Order: sequence, then C-alpha cells, then structure tokens
Amino acid sequence: MRIEQEMGRPVEEEEEEEEEEEEEVEKTVVVETSKDGEELFVPPLNFAIVDHGVFRSGFPEVANFSFLETLGLRSVVCLCPEPYPEPNAEFLRAHGIQLFQFGIEGRKEPFVNIPEDTIREALITVLDVRNHPILIHCNRGKHRTGCLVGCLRKLQRWCLSSVFDEYQRFAAAKARVSDQRFMERFDASSLKHLPSSFSCPRR
Amino acid sequence: MRIEQEMGRPVEEEEEEEEEEEEEVEKTVVVETSKDGEELFVPPLNFAIVDHGVFRSGFPEVANFSFLETLGLRSVVCLCPEPYPEPNAEFLRAHGIQLFQFGIEGRKEPFVNIPEDTIREALITVLDVRNHPILIHCNRGKHRTGCLVGCLRKLQRWCLSSVFDEYQRFAAAKARVSDQRFMERFDASSLKHLPSSFSCPRR
Repeated sequence: MRIEQEMGRPVEEEEEEEEEEEEEVEKTVVVETSKDGEELFVPPLNFAIVDHGVFRSGFPEVANFSFLETLGLRSVVCLCPEPYPEPNAEFLRAHGIQLFQFGIEGRKEPFVNIPEDTIREALITVLDVRNHPILIHCNRGKHRTGCLVGCLRKLQRWCLSSVFDEYQRFAAAKARVSDQRFMERFDASSLKHLPSSFSCPRR
Repeated sequence: MRIEQEMGRPVEEEEEEEEEEEEEVEKTVVVETSKDGEELFVPPLNFAIVDHGVFRSGFPEVANFSFLETLGLRSVVCLCPEPYPEPNAEFLRAHGIQLFQFGIEGRKEPFVNIPEDTIREALITVLDVRNHPILIHCNRGKHRTGCLVGCLRKLQRWCLSSVFDEYQRFAAAKARVSDQRFMERFDASSLKHLPSSFSCPRR
C-alpha cells in the first residue's frame, strides 16, 4: 500500500482533493436497469456500512438518491464546509432527514488543519442513536470521513493497525500519513461514557 | 486500480493465494493494550460489515477471537475447503456458533473453478436471517468472499460498477478480472424470492 508522504510538500503544491479525481465523478443522472428492466441501485462512491445504523460514503449525487431511500436515513453528517447543494437539501427535506454539517476544509493537511474539536463534535452526533440511521460523508469519502470513522474505531477499542487498515481500504493510493497521525493522536477517552458499539444483537 | 489479468497465464504460474501474502498474516497471539492498559480489539484481516447482521473477513486468527465475541455471532460461513483449524472450531463450540463450510479452492481461477452452485448455496445460507449475525470468511477475505458478497449485492440490485468497486476495495492489487466476470455472469433471479436487504429500520 503506497502512502502519500505529503508532509514535506509546500502548501501550494498540494493537490486539491476536489480536483484530483474529477474524472471519477459521475455528474449525469442515468437510471440503470438490469437485463429484465428492473431499476438498479447506485450506491454513492465509497459507500459502506460502518456499524449498525451508521453508513459512510463520498458526496451523494442525484443518481444515488433512490439507493439512499432504502437506508431509511434519519440524519446526515456532512464534513464539507461548502453550502449543501440544493438537490441534496431537497432530498433531505422530502424524506425528513436532518443535516448536521461540520465543515472541514478538504484540500488542506488534516494533521495541520482538522480541528480535533470538530471531529469530536461530529463523533458525538454519530454516536447518538437518536440520529440513526445516519450517513457520514465528505467529498470523496476518503480523508475527512476516514478520520472520523477512525476516531470512532478507536472509541470501539480497535487496535491502531486495524484502524489504519480500514482507512487505507478507502483512501487507497491517496492514503495520508498525516491523517493516520491525526487518528493516532486523537484522544477518545473523554467520549468513553457514550455507547460506541451498535453491532446487532442476535435475533 | 490495477487489475491482475490472469486469464492468459498458464495454470502452473498462478500465484497461490495462501502463499503470496504470507508475510501479512500474524501467527502470534499478542494481547494489545491501549495506553491506559485497556485491552484493544484486533478485528480479522479485511473485516467489514456487509449489511445488518452480515460480516466479512479473512481467516480469523486466535488474536481476533475477543473481537469476534463482541459480534454475538450465530454462524460462520467458511469458503475454504481445508479442515477447520481446531482453535477456531473450539471457539465456535464454546460460543454455540454454527459452522457452514462451502469449500472452494482458493488458488484456482474462480472464473474457471468457482462452482456457481456452491456460491448459490452459500448465498441462501447468508440470506437466512435465522443464521444472523453471520460471518463470511475465506483465507484473505478478498476473492472467494468478494465473489459471494458481490453476488449478494446483485441480489440487492446494486449496479455492477458499485459491485466491482466494493470488490476492488478489498482485493486491491489482487483484484481479478475473472472474479468480476463471475459476478457479472451470476444469475440471481432464482433467489429473488428471498429477503435480500437487512439494513436497519429507524428506531
């Protein structure tokens, strides 16, 4: 697994997360169908289940909305600072989904710029089962979302190598040492009174 | 994402899945602890939540058992043909966990060798909520497990590009075109009467 060592680069040379993978983003809305004409679901980029009632992904596009409906979301945590796009805001309104926005700049080095307090506040929102089912997303579902989920895993007492392994699965070639340092340094002890595991009980 | 094009290779040159990443496997049992002496959990390699009550991973090691206890598993689907290791069998017995073994050879090309009927039977077991919470595993949690989960996603009406995206997240540099062809060809229509989505409802 290649880890981008970005610490030594001057700030102006940093790649902008929003631009560097633009070619991957689907901007058009196409309803995909199977051979027998059944509508197919298009989960958002980097979609995954974090734990019972907690999901993660990249920024949802209109094409993802019919899939998101199946999750029965009660809330969304958006980690981008930009105003929420109107189609997304309308989707949330139409389904009674609450938006929690914790704006973190995406292009900067998280180790330098991610405010630990913001991640901590977002984590408290994610841990509150009254907000479940909840979707955490940023732009690509890699760095900001990866850091927040990594901090949740620390609270769930995952060893650091497993936290990093999961982070790298989503960040892949874009994995950042600085993000991993942020997660390593994050002190979850003040949140230990909160319930942190949502794995389903036996039926 | 680099895709291994293995179709053209002679069989004897195929890498054996069991051997090629041996250095990643932890064979020793070390209880990891946090700074304040709390025991840390070590999820199995490539552990993830597939859906509500369905988990996936590589082959569990003894070091992973305390983490697995937290899942309250009712059953395990093992996709390896080898006899189940005694420590693992003992763990299952001690926790009343049922083992379903669907032996599929790991080193061969799935496109040639994965018996579709075996995947279909394993899928029926995974879909049966009476077996939940259930853990699916093979050796590395990449190819056999990836194919089974991919077939489940087709049943859940995920579009093929999302199925492949998820498969590649786990297989990474070991992703196989042949596995993806298997998933593309898999006909889930005979299983459509079974419940295929376990995502949690609002509380």
